[in-house]
Amino acid sequence: MSTYSSKLVENAVNELAKLPGIGRKTALRLALHLLKQEKAEVELLGTSIIKMRADAIFCKVCHNISDNEICTICNNQKRNRSVICVVEDIRDVMAIENTSQFNGLYHVLGGIISPLDGIGPNDLTINKLADRLKGKEVVEIILALSATIEGDTTNFYLYKRLKEFDILFTTIARGVSVGDELEYTDEITLGRSIINRQPFEGLNNR
Amino acid sequence: MSTYSSKLVENAVNELAKLPGIGRKTALRLALHLLKQEKAEVELLGTSIIKMRADAIFCKVCHNISDNEICTICNNQKRNRSVICVVEDIRDVMAIENTSQFNGLYHVLGGIISPLDGIGPNDLTINKLADRLKGKEVVEIILALSATIEGDTTNFYLYKRLKEFDILFTTIARGVSVGDELEYTDEITLGRSIINRQPFEGLNNR
Repeated sequence: MSTYSSKLVENAVNELAKLPGIGRKTALRLALHLLKQEKAEVELLGTSIIKMRADAIFCKVCHNISDNEICTICNNQKRNRSVICVVEDIRDVMAIENTSQFNGLYHVLGGIISPLDGIGPNDLTINKLADRLKGKEVVEIILALSATIEGDTTNFYLYKRLKEFDILFTTIARGVSVGDELEYTDEITLGRSIINRQPFEGLNNR
Repeated sequence: MSTYSSKLVENAVNELAKLPGIGRKTALRLALHLLKQEKAEVELLGTSIIKMRADAIFCKVCHNISDNEICTICNNQKRNRSVICVVEDIRDVMAIENTSQFNGLYHVLGGIISPLDGIGPNDLTINKLADRLKGKEVVEIILALSATIEGDTTNFYLYKRLKEFDILFTTIARGVSVGDELEYTDEITLGRSIINRQPFEGLNNR
C-alpha cells in the first residue's frame, strides 16, 4: 500500500513483485537501482527476457530448453546415444553437465509425479520418453530424480511403464556427500549408504 | 560457469544476475520462471522497466521521482508549503507518506555525506534546497535522515550551511520504538530517550 509519486515506478514495482521470492520492498529496491543505471543497460535487461520468452523453445527430442528444434546436446554426434539420463527439469541438466561426468543424452520430464500438487504422469513427457526407447538404440536409463517421496514414486512409475523395453534401469547413487562428516549425516542417508556399500577401490574411490 | 543449452536463456540470466542481491542461481530460477509465464506477462515486465527508466524524471523542486516536471506532492495546493522535510532518498518519502502524519513538502538529498564512499556536499541537492528557502515561505526544516554518523554529519552540515535563513530546524524524534521492550533496547537509544524525555500526556502519548 505504498504511495508512489510516479505511476511508471509503481508499474515497474508491481511487475517485479510478481517474480518468485521478490516482495514489494525488494521490488522497489530493484526499481530504484534500475533508475540509476544507464538507459541502454535497462533496455538490455528488458529485451533479453522478452526475447528469451518469445524465441526459446523446448528440444523436440529431450525437452531441454533450446534455441533450435533439436538442442545442442541431442545434436552432438560425439555423445553416447545409448544412455538416457532422466531428470526433472532444465536446471538438473545444467547441474549434471557441470560435473563433466556424463556423456549420454537427457530426457527432461518437466516435473515429477506429485498428487498433492495435481501433477500426474500425463503432465510429464513420459510418452515422449517411451517413443525414444522404441528404436532399440538405448540400452540404459539413468533415473536422476530428487531423493524425495515424489522422486521415488516417479522412479517406480517410470520403471513399471517402461520395463517392457528390456533396458537396464539405474539410479544415481545416494549416500554421504563428499566432504560430509558422518556424525552430521541424517540416519536414513547413512543407513542407505551402509546397505549400498561398494567395493573399496583405493585412490579411485576418492 | 554453467553450461547453457540456450544462448537466449544465458543472456537473460547474465542480465538478471546484474541486479543487486541476485546471484547466478537466483537469476536462473527467475529466468526459468519467466519461461513458464504467458508471453504477454513477460513483455509487461520487460517494457515496464524500460519505460520507467526512459520516462521517469526527478521533480524540479524536491527531486522526488516523478512522471512530470513537478511531482504530485509539490503540485498539491492542499499541502503545507511552510515546512520542508529533508530526506536521503525516494524510499524515505514513501515511508513518511505511508504514516499519513506529515502534510508538508519534501526535499530529497539523493544521499548523505559520506567521505568513505566519496560522497560530499556537492554530490547532493543542497544548493537546490538553499534556493527553496530564499522565498521566505518556509519556516521549518525537518531533518529526517538516518540515525547514523553519516546522518548526523549531514544534519550538522545542513544546519551550518542554512542557518543564515532564520528557520526553525527540527529532527525527527529518536527513542524507543513503539512496541519495543526496554530491556532489548540498545544503550545509546535508551540513554537518548531519557535525555529527551517528554511531558506525559496521558492517552495522547499512546
